[in-house]
Amino acid sequence: MLDNIKKDFPVLNQIVNDEPLVYLDNAATTQKPLSVLSVLIDYYKTDNANVHRGVHTLAERATAKYEAAREKVRAFINAKSTKEVLFTRGTTTSLNWVTRFADQILSATDEIVISIMEHHSNIVPWQQVAEATGATLKFVYLKDGMLDMDDLRAKITDKTKFVSIAHVSNVLGVINPIKEIAEIAHTHGAYMVVDGAQSTPHMKVDVQELDADFFAFSGHKMMGPTGIGVLYGKEELLMQMNPVEFGGEMIDFVYESHSTWTELPWKFEAGTPNIAGAIALGAAIDYINSLGLDEIHQHERELIDYVMPKLLEIDGLTLYGPVDNAKRSGVIAFNLEGLHPHDVATALDMEGVAVRAGHHCAQPLLHYLDTPATARASFYVYNTKEDCDKLVEAILKTKEFFS
Amino acid sequence: MLDNIKKDFPVLNQIVNDEPLVYLDNAATTQKPLSVLSVLIDYYKTDNANVHRGVHTLAERATAKYEAAREKVRAFINAKSTKEVLFTRGTTTSLNWVTRFADQILSATDEIVISIMEHHSNIVPWQQVAEATGATLKFVYLKDGMLDMDDLRAKITDKTKFVSIAHVSNVLGVINPIKEIAEIAHTHGAYMVVDGAQSTPHMKVDVQELDADFFAFSGHKMMGPTGIGVLYGKEELLMQMNPVEFGGEMIDFVYESHSTWTELPWKFEAGTPNIAGAIALGAAIDYINSLGLDEIHQHERELIDYVMPKLLEIDGLTLYGPVDNAKRSGVIAFNLEGLHPHDVATALDMEGVAVRAGHHCAQPLLHYLDTPATARASFYVYNTKEDCDKLVEAILKTKEFFS
Repeated sequence: MLDNIKKDFPVLNQIVNDEPLVYLDNAATTQKPLSVLSVLIDYYKTDNANVHRGVHTLAERATAKYEAAREKVRAFINAKSTKEVLFTRGTTTSLNWVTRFADQILSATDEIVISIMEHHSNIVPWQQVAEATGATLKFVYLKDGMLDMDDLRAKITDKTKFVSIAHVSNVLGVINPIKEIAEIAHTHGAYMVVDGAQSTPHMKVDVQELDADFFAFSGHKMMGPTGIGVLYGKEELLMQMNPVEFGGEMIDFVYESHSTWTELPWKFEAGTPNIAGAIALGAAIDYINSLGLDEIHQHERELIDYVMPKLLEIDGLTLYGPVDNAKRSGVIAFNLEGLHPHDVATALDMEGVAVRAGHHCAQPLLHYLDTPATARASFYVYNTKEDCDKLVEAILKTKEFFS
Repeated sequence: MLDNIKKDFPVLNQIVNDEPLVYLDNAATTQKPLSVLSVLIDYYKTDNANVHRGVHTLAERATAKYEAAREKVRAFINAKSTKEVLFTRGTTTSLNWVTRFADQILSATDEIVISIMEHHSNIVPWQQVAEATGATLKFVYLKDGMLDMDDLRAKITDKTKFVSIAHVSNVLGVINPIKEIAEIAHTHGAYMVVDGAQSTPHMKVDVQELDADFFAFSGHKMMGPTGIGVLYGKEELLMQMNPVEFGGEMIDFVYESHSTWTELPWKFEAGTPNIAGAIALGAAIDYINSLGLDEIHQHERELIDYVMPKLLEIDGLTLYGPVDNAKRSGVIAFNLEGLHPHDVATALDMEGVAVRAGHHCAQPLLHYLDTPATARASFYVYNTKEDCDKLVEAILKTKEFFS
């Protein structure tokens, strides 16, 4: 079934530089199926109104669809309640919100533990809160292209108040053992924060099973639109947490001198939300569910098992991340000896193959890996073995061209 | 020309409760023309990629379109430079960001001046910053349904550091003399912040002519999509202002211990922005420009001049806001004697007429007006005199039904 879904994605059916497009930049953003685009447009063509505040028909329909999308998200990540599902602009906003909660409770003797493989959105906000509160920010390093669990166990102590780790690295592709890390964090009384941007689109996420205290992800990386994301938080924590933005919808009463807040989840959703974005994210979840997350994960695993041996055969090609494909998601960072990754990406683009090059918003990791940049191919469910072949061919052509 | 544009808005061509829809809830959100929907969908069907970070063809096209949208916004409000145009989630986020800047510079002896007619999004964030910094929050009150300029002159003193006022009230419909207020603020060395959510869609805004230091508005209230808005800020202020969100794209270098920021406007745009939303907002600006803002303003003025005398004739109907229609935008708040506005809005909905009822996120104003709630009809460029007639008829029917 999954070999036949490219037709659902009009953007993939195009010629780029006289070659059929092979889109392998899915860790940056994913393409949208027709069903998501239909829901997005149908909303604007039939129901568009502001939510929660209206008694007229369109407002009631818009509100029902917006809140139905929240329930779809809840079920998708198995949150206990829709009170625990906050719509945000994306993973970056979600993680910034968690650090605002950290700012509220941390003191100078506390510690925060993150890893060297984190995306900037899971580093810079923690640097800020560390600076503001005097808390210490500690990094866990790597072993064999994966999180060094011994180092992690050493770094997490009773002083640790927050542990924040990517579920899947956007450079190494490695899947981190979040459930195990959460157990360690909780043993020491720390909160477990998960950057789920690179996992949620690709594998079953169960926030209760993982026992994550906070879990952040983006719609646009899972076939939804741009400008919408989610912060999951355990209800008792969101109850303690101050709102981050203030305005309409999130209040109970506003007096001249002060205000009181409404209940969860709306306490955190000031102003007009990205209504259409949330509803279309719900449609993306429907589409993912129609394919099956296990099937998606299996499909990507097959692609990786197929392409990795071919890549390993290429002389002068360095691969980053774990050697064991079973520890990998569909992200492959690589470099070609003697070539700048930007030149590699540009050359691949001439062959119609879209990959990313640069620091992938992970400068500390790249510094640690002792390379200023890498190229990165990242796969999703609509990619095929033919796409894998095209990538390998294009890399070989690039090598030849520059030699 | 403007009488014939309803056909551009598919949502308006529908039957609600067996009656043709008359959509008069435009102060809450506006409908989207086909041209905006086309641009939105075409982006996803042909160009979708993440911006700024990619060298492949789609990423370059997406980046060019996203930044072209910023230039459209710049021209639309006549900002000096695209460095002064920040994409946000909407007006609420924009105003919250300004108050983060206030938090950065205010001290306990400073004062903030806002008005009693402000939307919660221009009250609650200021309450928060006043509480955090010890600064005093002062309210300017009303005279004849408009801002009391004598009170404003008395409240703004050399202690005032921020004056933040709505360009147009979302309840009273009154257009406030921002240029004059900005002059008063600047004479006392205060910054002028403008909530432009209700003005930007309806009249020509020139931030340089107004001499606003900050100016906030939303895409969804001007025929653009939900989830996108703008914060304009003078370059020298945005240079001083700390970023509000931290993550990818807004950094220059990230080290383990600290980070440095990139240049304006990207310093403020952490993470993947609402790319499609910004591009579609650009399309909304194109559509508005094709109609002409002066023509839009004139059209709404004609509707108000047409409907107000008919409303004034209705016995038991209370109207809020200025008596002089020339001081009004297309927002009309009203109450029917003896009826709760929610019942009025529900009854109007039975006639196909969509109006809002409630406190309109302006509880302090409604408390000041000594009413817990009002109904509110709000017009936009696609409304017609027939819509005005339908509103009047439906109000008369409602009166009759409940009497």
